Amino acid sequence: MELFTYHRSSAAYRVRIALNYKGIKYSTVPVNLLKVEHRGDDYLRINPQGLVPALRLDDRRVLTQSGAILEWLEENYPSPALLPQDSYDRSMVRGWANIIACDIHPIDNLRVLNYLTGELGVNDEQKQTWYRHWIKLGFDVLEAQVKAAPYCFGKQVSMADIYLIPQVYNALRFKVEMNHYPKIHAVYKNCNALDAFSQAAPENQPDAPT
Amino acid sequence: MELFTYHRSSAAYRVRIALNYKGIKYSTVPVNLLKVEHRGDDYLRINPQGLVPALRLDDRRVLTQSGAILEWLEENYPSPALLPQDSYDRSMVRGWANIIACDIHPIDNLRVLNYLTGELGVNDEQKQTWYRHWIKLGFDVLEAQVKAAPYCFGKQVSMADIYLIPQVYNALRFKVEMNHYPKIHAVYKNCNALDAFSQAAPENQPDAPT
Repeated sequence: MELFTYHRSSAAYRVRIALNYKGIKYSTVPVNLLKVEHRGDDYLRINPQGLVPALRLDDRRVLTQSGAILEWLEENYPSPALLPQDSYDRSMVRGWANIIACDIHPIDNLRVLNYLTGELGVNDEQKQTWYRHWIKLGFDVLEAQVKAAPYCFGKQVSMADIYLIPQVYNALRFKVEMNHYPKIHAVYKNCNALDAFSQAAPENQPDAPT
Repeated sequence: MELFTYHRSSAAYRVRIALNYKGIKYSTVPVNLLKVEHRGDDYLRINPQGLVPALRLDDRRVLTQSGAILEWLEENYPSPALLPQDSYDRSMVRGWANIIACDIHPIDNLRVLNYLTGELGVNDEQKQTWYRHWIKLGFDVLEAQVKAAPYCFGKQVSMADIYLIPQVYNALRFKVEMNHYPKIHAVYKNCNALDAFSQAAPENQPDAPT
């Protein structure tokens, strides 16, 4: 498998964690978002939406959208599982993941921030406030629900952790006050003690600046 | 089952279509977003995130986040199916749905528009341009992929249609030029010829203005 990735992309980071956690071998194909390689013809042939990640299977078929890729990995590499067995519990984990996938991350994504500062002339302070606003709304809800024992939903790593850790990584970059979220921060540290997570971190990618 | 819903909420609209399509009986509990009932204590006890929809099961457990609810419905009421049998095909449908669920809808959601006009002082024309910008980026990709034969992915209704129809409904409200998207528009008309879709439409809800 080949993962088209950018070291700082949260969505690619999620897929890197899942691949590592399930012990799936893959090679990295960096797509440099700052050089706008994701909008170039070569990459648009891989993923017409022009976003990372994309996962090219050994039979050359391509999967896109991190949420769809994670469900595909779970169906095809079920062990170790990233979703619980019980259907209601699965819904809890997926609902949790969706708070990040839908209600935080897309609104704080680079292309949205670029629209704010470009087309709408928003200044840097307003941009930072926007960023932290959507994280705060989401994290306030997540903090009340997270078990942190030691992972989001208890003793097993789940898809919730896979969504949370890249989002916390971004929150730290934007100087969100994490001592408001002690349980989320504990999960962040507990997950990063695992190789699957630490090896997926942006600074440990081949395309990270040295 | 009880569905906590608002007639114009796209996310609630998705769940209404799925419940109808699968022939699941439910009662409607309106939550008036304009009266900010979703931020009231009564509703926050149902869904601490303060968003619609929420689905309360007969055993009083509550599901939230439309994406998680749709997967739960598919697991517990598998027929008629909203996802194909083949795992790669499932990933295509989920990826398609995620373009709407992650990359269009959250950025154009009411609370984001309110932040733009409130905190950032964006005027109405800029707000409309913002709205149409994110729809255009997504619809340009979707139009190239949709089969419209007669539904998004062929002869069977799928989760892709369930995400698309509420998004087109919103696009029409914001006067997006749908003749740029003839296949998407055809799917919209084909789906709305089905009772499951037309009965889920905002204007046919008990909380719609008369």
